[in-house]
Amino acid sequence: MKPIHLAVLAMICAMVLLASTDNTMAAADDGDASPIYGVRIPAGYRQWQLIAPAEEAAPLNEIRAVLGNTIAVNAYRDGALPFPDGTVLAKLAWKHVPSPDFASASIPGAATTVQFMVKDSKKYAATGGWGFGRFVNGKAADEAQHRTCFACHQARAKAHDYVFTRYAH
Amino acid sequence: MKPIHLAVLAMICAMVLLASTDNTMAAADDGDASPIYGVRIPAGYRQWQLIAPAEEAAPLNEIRAVLGNTIAVNAYRDGALPFPDGTVLAKLAWKHVPSPDFASASIPGAATTVQFMVKDSKKYAATGGWGFGRFVNGKAADEAQHRTCFACHQARAKAHDYVFTRYAH
Repeated sequence: MKPIHLAVLAMICAMVLLASTDNTMAAADDGDASPIYGVRIPAGYRQWQLIAPAEEAAPLNEIRAVLGNTIAVNAYRDGALPFPDGTVLAKLAWKHVPSPDFASASIPGAATTVQFMVKDSKKYAATGGWGFGRFVNGKAADEAQHRTCFACHQARAKAHDYVFTRYAH
Repeated sequence: MKPIHLAVLAMICAMVLLASTDNTMAAADDGDASPIYGVRIPAGYRQWQLIAPAEEAAPLNEIRAVLGNTIAVNAYRDGALPFPDGTVLAKLAWKHVPSPDFASASIPGAATTVQFMVKDSKKYAATGGWGFGRFVNGKAADEAQHRTCFACHQARAKAHDYVFTRYAH
């Protein structure tokens, strides 16, 4: 195959993949919607690229990983702030348990929460352009929990478009 | 576009992407090769999917993430042991530093090492089918360090094809 054909094919591939993976409205069939924001668990989020891992000390004792969809990854790469509409970040959290194989290591235990931030500057204009969703075993947490999201992000991460996580290079 | 055309296009895309991202011989232009094994830093590994995050206590004090190429991810998904030839796992490690934004959180600081396991059952028959590469700032660590890799994986992770990391669901 000639290089130009390969390049065209690669472009088509990229378009198809963007269309198939970056539709933030695409949700798992059995998805629940978060109170206040109506955020659903996006299909295929576990396949998204890693933005950064993190730890959360007691009492939560969690290991976490923030993943981002293609729009998110590109925004981090380009240093684009505010994040563009369509950005979705996923924070996966697990109990942090000792490795059975290596005394000094800790590894993910049971999953605790999966949380999402969805950028839609019009729909979520009242909360910095972000919608929030917090899920436990695929079920959205209650409204009281969702009332806490934006206040904390606003108080502590406003200068980075309300997003705590930096890209881990 | 008809569904059948889209399906064919998606298959072509998958083949092109596999060819472009899963050739374990593809290396960064300026790549260094590890002693003993000749493992190079694979191009694009930072875009690979997350297998699991981990922590390493003192004295290393690291936050880590293990990523895998498509062959690795599929093997984890299917529970395939031993991992097939072409599997590549990447372990990224950073110093674990307090978040400036949130007292109970720790986040990645400076990158410390990037390490790879490459499955080639013929080439690396003497070490369980795995070649190892440990890199600091893109430069391979010395031979003495590479002599330690397999002994430890053999002693502690043989039952999981010498791989410590499990997939974080």
